[in-house]
Amino acid sequence: MSTVIPGKPDTTSPWATRFAPIGEELAGVEHRLQAALRHPDPFIDELAQRSFRLGGKRLRPALLLLTAQAAGAINDNHRILAAVVEMIHTATLVHDDVLDEAAIRRHEDTINARWNNQTSILLGDYLFSQAFYLASSLETTLGCRTIGRSTNIVCEGELLQTAASGNFELSCEQYFRIIGAKTAELCACCCSLGAHYAGCDQQAIEKLKTFGQQLGIAFQIADDLLDLVGEEQTVGKSLGTDLTKQRMTLPLILLRDQLDSTQQRDLQNLLDVPNIDNNGTLKAWLQSSGALQQAHELAQSHADEARQQLTFLADSPAKQSLLLLPQEAVSRCI
Amino acid sequence: MSTVIPGKPDTTSPWATRFAPIGEELAGVEHRLQAALRHPDPFIDELAQRSFRLGGKRLRPALLLLTAQAAGAINDNHRILAAVVEMIHTATLVHDDVLDEAAIRRHEDTINARWNNQTSILLGDYLFSQAFYLASSLETTLGCRTIGRSTNIVCEGELLQTAASGNFELSCEQYFRIIGAKTAELCACCCSLGAHYAGCDQQAIEKLKTFGQQLGIAFQIADDLLDLVGEEQTVGKSLGTDLTKQRMTLPLILLRDQLDSTQQRDLQNLLDVPNIDNNGTLKAWLQSSGALQQAHELAQSHADEARQQLTFLADSPAKQSLLLLPQEAVSRCI
Repeated sequence: MSTVIPGKPDTTSPWATRFAPIGEELAGVEHRLQAALRHPDPFIDELAQRSFRLGGKRLRPALLLLTAQAAGAINDNHRILAAVVEMIHTATLVHDDVLDEAAIRRHEDTINARWNNQTSILLGDYLFSQAFYLASSLETTLGCRTIGRSTNIVCEGELLQTAASGNFELSCEQYFRIIGAKTAELCACCCSLGAHYAGCDQQAIEKLKTFGQQLGIAFQIADDLLDLVGEEQTVGKSLGTDLTKQRMTLPLILLRDQLDSTQQRDLQNLLDVPNIDNNGTLKAWLQSSGALQQAHELAQSHADEARQQLTFLADSPAKQSLLLLPQEAVSRCI
Repeated sequence: MSTVIPGKPDTTSPWATRFAPIGEELAGVEHRLQAALRHPDPFIDELAQRSFRLGGKRLRPALLLLTAQAAGAINDNHRILAAVVEMIHTATLVHDDVLDEAAIRRHEDTINARWNNQTSILLGDYLFSQAFYLASSLETTLGCRTIGRSTNIVCEGELLQTAASGNFELSCEQYFRIIGAKTAELCACCCSLGAHYAGCDQQAIEKLKTFGQQLGIAFQIADDLLDLVGEEQTVGKSLGTDLTKQRMTLPLILLRDQLDSTQQRDLQNLLDVPNIDNNGTLKAWLQSSGALQQAHELAQSHADEARQQLTFLADSPAKQSLLLLPQEAVSRCI
């Protein structure tokens, strides 16, 4: 049963407890988001308010604020940028739901399911430009520049993923390049901005950026595992999208690479016709071959790599929260 | 027959001759755009280079540069912003072609026709973020702020247009609100930025902004007339979209408002089923009722209003070009 209260961020997930050291700051981000997305036109207002509930976990603003707090102190630059990164993330979610033809996200109808694709595309554009507008309220152009560059890399990753659809030959290296761009880049950007505006030196900024990058990779591998073997009701969003879109994710790549050419043809035949029977056979094969376990171990090693970046930070509740995030990311898919 | 050379801006249109006073500067913008949109990945590079040819007329950078030159002198801020506004415009075109399910633009296949909607959505996002990234290379945040605000208004206009689809009751006022946002806002933004970075005072900036706003309105009314009565081969893009999407544009609103209730029902019946026969009957009715002529006169009056804003400027080739633009916009639809 869903525990999500419409209009409120999800405070019941294990993530929320990790964010306790910045709980009040996150509440402030909610108010800022809600205020920035109010609109005099009732239709646009309804869309904007609804989009604002899609992100749910608020992982990216939390990451930015926790990094800031662990590395120094949170200031107004961080508060603005926390709202900006959540808007950018929401814009990509709204467009993702069109790309994936997804009907459910966070136990609610997606914008494209409730209205139509046109509305989703325009709402995503509206959120992108609103995010950049908000970023331009900082004193210098550094925020806009960093967000612009990262958003660009996110889009590149998504474009490469689209081009890779149906490509059975996708290499492990190409897979990591795609997820490094489409997911990990914005996490890295959050940590880098958190550190920069807390007054860190370049070396500390780089370490915290790497933390975000590795966390993002672990998170996406776990997401790809969930898309294959998760339960929609528990996860709260449409699953099985990667098989429908014929995307080679890590478990499939690991399985393929251990097969001989005859078995590879069998695998390709299953992937070519995604239906309930074939997907069931695939899941059993992924399980028995150990590919699921291997993918999980790779997620774990990126989570460990993330945690190792934080050794230079003095101990604090914010640091403890950051240390727990990679584990939370990976344990979702066990 | 098409005179468009792939990879080159259209230098054969009447617009191009109007841009002669800033010809070299516009060539510089082309180089800047081409350089900013180069990408090491061949797929993304091909997409970006192709998108770069979609805008064609380069009206928005020309408007920004002509305003700057007429009001003072062109500097590097203008050159960067000219590329930025063209990227924003191209991003909206790429997304528009998905919304309109258009197959042809500037005598070429659209991105969605050549690839697919997914690719178009992501390429549009890529262009948006690239534009904001480029805007953040200015010294202050004013460029990002102005572009962010205007892009937001453009999206609002497009969202309102989507919501108004199939609304036979759309008022003249609502129509002008939509086109004022979706088209005229970015033109106004170009003139305002051109004036600001040429060192104009607030009064001059406001006049030039109004010039852009009125020019944009005249341009969009003409575009809506062309969509109803133009020839695809001459105009070089998919037409008839407004009828297919059941959008009440100005000529239809003017016709409806002069009909009694029985005739209004007849009109609505024709609009409810857009097909070749009904569209033919509609066009004849729009012609005989004088609604086409009235819409054209309204476009003309906005063009005149635009020209009147420029009286304060000293005479110059750039001012003469600006004065000709509203007439060019309107004469397309005669």
